[in-house]
Amino acid sequence: MSEIKDKGRAAKAASFQLIGKSSEAKNQALKCIASQLIEDQEIILQENGKDLEAGKAKGFTSSVLDRIMLTEKRINDMASAIILLTELPDPIGETLETIEKDNGLLIKKTRVPLGVIGMIYEARPNVTVDAATLSLKTGNAVILRGSSSAFYSNKALVTSIHRALSKTELPVDAVQLIEDTSRETAKELFHLKEYLDVLIPRGGKNLIDTVVRESTVPVLETGAGNCHVYIDESAEPAMAERIVVNGKTQRPSVCNAIESLLIHENWFNKYGTELLTSLVNKDVEIFGDHTICKVLPEAKLANEEDWGSEYLALAISIKVVKDTAEAVEHINQYGTKHSEAIITNDQGNAARFLQSVDAAAVYHNASTRFTDGFEFGYGAEIGISTQKLHARGPMGLQAMTSSKYFVYGTGQIRE
Amino acid sequence: MSEIKDKGRAAKAASFQLIGKSSEAKNQALKCIASQLIEDQEIILQENGKDLEAGKAKGFTSSVLDRIMLTEKRINDMASAIILLTELPDPIGETLETIEKDNGLLIKKTRVPLGVIGMIYEARPNVTVDAATLSLKTGNAVILRGSSSAFYSNKALVTSIHRALSKTELPVDAVQLIEDTSRETAKELFHLKEYLDVLIPRGGKNLIDTVVRESTVPVLETGAGNCHVYIDESAEPAMAERIVVNGKTQRPSVCNAIESLLIHENWFNKYGTELLTSLVNKDVEIFGDHTICKVLPEAKLANEEDWGSEYLALAISIKVVKDTAEAVEHINQYGTKHSEAIITNDQGNAARFLQSVDAAAVYHNASTRFTDGFEFGYGAEIGISTQKLHARGPMGLQAMTSSKYFVYGTGQIRE
Repeated sequence: MSEIKDKGRAAKAASFQLIGKSSEAKNQALKCIASQLIEDQEIILQENGKDLEAGKAKGFTSSVLDRIMLTEKRINDMASAIILLTELPDPIGETLETIEKDNGLLIKKTRVPLGVIGMIYEARPNVTVDAATLSLKTGNAVILRGSSSAFYSNKALVTSIHRALSKTELPVDAVQLIEDTSRETAKELFHLKEYLDVLIPRGGKNLIDTVVRESTVPVLETGAGNCHVYIDESAEPAMAERIVVNGKTQRPSVCNAIESLLIHENWFNKYGTELLTSLVNKDVEIFGDHTICKVLPEAKLANEEDWGSEYLALAISIKVVKDTAEAVEHINQYGTKHSEAIITNDQGNAARFLQSVDAAAVYHNASTRFTDGFEFGYGAEIGISTQKLHARGPMGLQAMTSSKYFVYGTGQIRE
Repeated sequence: MSEIKDKGRAAKAASFQLIGKSSEAKNQALKCIASQLIEDQEIILQENGKDLEAGKAKGFTSSVLDRIMLTEKRINDMASAIILLTELPDPIGETLETIEKDNGLLIKKTRVPLGVIGMIYEARPNVTVDAATLSLKTGNAVILRGSSSAFYSNKALVTSIHRALSKTELPVDAVQLIEDTSRETAKELFHLKEYLDVLIPRGGKNLIDTVVRESTVPVLETGAGNCHVYIDESAEPAMAERIVVNGKTQRPSVCNAIESLLIHENWFNKYGTELLTSLVNKDVEIFGDHTICKVLPEAKLANEEDWGSEYLALAISIKVVKDTAEAVEHINQYGTKHSEAIITNDQGNAARFLQSVDAAAVYHNASTRFTDGFEFGYGAEIGISTQKLHARGPMGLQAMTSSKYFVYGTGQIRE
């Protein structure tokens, strides 16, 4: 028997035990996990040290090592996030629809857990704790398949979670960690339809593309963000500069950062040079069209790949366009359906842009950096969906649920 | 250029033209299609005749020929269904959530079309009209890939729809029929991620399994129904018999018909023989466990395959169980997560059954035959989802929509 099948079966069995557990029982278990992580902090940091050492030996960059690294503060932050999670309302059991039929049938559409959630993710060990606790809060079992680069950290975290769960009403088997991080186990997970209700990939474009291409288990695609800002003719120059510079430079490594800029030609003629200078002063590398390259000698000429790039770094592609329609067309061709913004004082152009651009979140006069479960007020986030089915945009607790029709009769049949 | 790519591109362009079309414009177009179908009835029946003749020559059974056949009445029924559709509320544009942030950001989660829907289906030409009109009502473009056995009928129906659309505000390209019904075009459709937002298979288990296995486009799985009725110890004998006999025999070819029966041993000892006799009198073939075969010599011994079978015919599998827990376990092992019923006067057993059985619709003292978009009051149905993401159970107009966050600011950035 394979590890994947064994753990799949155990998680499925646990998911049935989770059905009907009270919000109190689930929150109690979450609090128990929070304290246990603090209690086990020393051993967790020690195991994390092994991953860091292995990573250094493999020559990982400091930014990758930073993603793997746990600290006392980071563990405390995990515990605080779990406590905040216990304060969120429990979505399970909510009545979504009540239908009373003339024949006396009473139909209640009710929110229920998905069952077993598979998470496949890269470096960050905090995803282990996030995914486990969000799953438990929503009554789901979870199978975690992290990266080999965080093997010891993930194992220590899950051991701590198991230790906590063993003191609660919730089944220990509800959280499963796949220890064999080979490609073969990933493939097996993609086809574990018998036990998995959904698979959520978290990581780079390659991982997500592979999961979408190969998985027969339904996938919640979380996504790459090639986010654009379009500066329309009537945009306020100060607002445009603030949104673009902040959106590009405040945290370039996140998916809602700005990756591409479209500028109306008339606005560009008046304020373009100043904006380009602001970006250059912040060390942003610029890939521009011919117009940009003419006024900014240090700009590189953008190629087809640049227009589709999610740089996740201090780099941006810039194109001058003749109107809103051209901006919309460009975005619908190169965007990743994540977050797109227009800066304009023209309400008509704003409305056309927001309606025509095909993305999870569209902004008028605000930064795309707000696409985030916490910023939207959901209090939690399992990822940002760039697909259109089930959930689109920041996914909070509700995205981790399904529904079920409960039908109550007195012997009704179809005539 | 391939037919699939060309039509995919045209449908995608049309889907953008559909954005923001008023409910009036959409309903007007639907009415126009309804009249055009009536007007074109003669040519449609003539073309349908070609399919019927080809089908007879290929030796199709009368039930398959009946599925292909159109009549004056069936075309009138299609037109009436379209008129009813115009009377349903338009889901598009509905505000699903309004979030006001302290920083002044206003976030509106709004219902929007999915974009382009792919439908891949078997024989019945009425699916062509259903899928096209439900898609237009929800602002979606649609790519129809029917079966070669209904080639002439589908072509005549889509020609009629195009003729109607050309007189309206909606783009003719919003409805595309794939004329090459080879396996190659089906495969191409499975990977048309560039243009397709969702793929909905309608047909037998083989078709659905193939689509789920091969498609990289997100799939809305509509489903097989191996529906069970569990007769608990305290079930009223008359109610149990009525629900079982009606659920099995009233229309055996549909997915919500009863395929398997589980009976509490004590109930069986009292009323079992009578129930079996009723089924036999209705010509139902019985595949039973050892207990059933002992009391009913004409029963065949059920094998592993029978417990998982969706007979779609006058046949049923029957097993005697010792309690509700055994019934639930059996259903969760062999069921297809469609519709499951318990007949009992014990509220505790009913609650346990409804909660523990993993299915789209669960029934207490009523027939599984009610799992249907029209019976649930949705006024339309594109299929019954047996998956847990996006939509579960009967899918009405809302299942054909997505959501989008519209965010309105005054220059806000992340600090």
